Amino acid sequence: MASIFTKIINGEIPCHKVAETDFAISFLDIRPLKRGHTLVVPKEEVDKLFDLPKADYDGVMDLAYRVGAAMEKAIDCKRIGVAVLGLEVPHAHVHLIPIDSEKDLNFGNPRLEFTDEEWESIANEIKAAL
Amino acid sequence: MASIFTKIINGEIPCHKVAETDFAISFLDIRPLKRGHTLVVPKEEVDKLFDLPKADYDGVMDLAYRVGAAMEKAIDCKRIGVAVLGLEVPHAHVHLIPIDSEKDLNFGNPRLEFTDEEWESIANEIKAAL
Repeated sequence: MASIFTKIINGEIPCHKVAETDFAISFLDIRPLKRGHTLVVPKEEVDKLFDLPKADYDGVMDLAYRVGAAMEKAIDCKRIGVAVLGLEVPHAHVHLIPIDSEKDLNFGNPRLEFTDEEWESIANEIKAAL
Repeated sequence: MASIFTKIINGEIPCHKVAETDFAISFLDIRPLKRGHTLVVPKEEVDKLFDLPKADYDGVMDLAYRVGAAMEKAIDCKRIGVAVLGLEVPHAHVHLIPIDSEKDLNFGNPRLEFTDEEWESIANEIKAAL
């Protein structure tokens, strides 16, 4: 069965998209640890990041570089943290998370909620900085 | 003043080296969250990962791909997690951390200690899988 991320890539499930290339897609995490928390996901559905073919891995990291740099411009934070865990969804994905302290990058922290307008505003801020 | 990582790169401070390229070096984290916790560090001393010139960023991510894949073979764990925070040392670095659950990737967790023989053994296990 297709992963939830493949369904997003195929347009079967909506997302707040930030950017897309031949190899990867980037959209806001719907369970954000911080305002602006974004994912970068390979179009190739592979469970573990380091099992991706090198071209797909490079495509993910290229997009993470562009989106991460845009987030540093657009989002108020000390820096953009990066995390790859992937224990919940068996489709590799890179978390880009605005952080002000080490504690911000803790997946046990409570998740934020936003209104439709806020989601759209966050995605637009990042897109404008790309 | 040179960062502690630049001093390691220059051979002024010893490390348990795993691999090295023109662009990056990989060695065991001396304050490991898990057995096998490894760093990948650009030779270019830049504070934030996404501020690296693209060639240096690519060099770091290339080495992370090779070392991460080797760690998945060598180290007993569910997968290799990735984290970039960089709030302590102002020289960008990628953490590669063997994880079995989300809780393992929490920088508030206690750090492990090893004997010289254990450090050497861990580095050799990863190098043998490269």
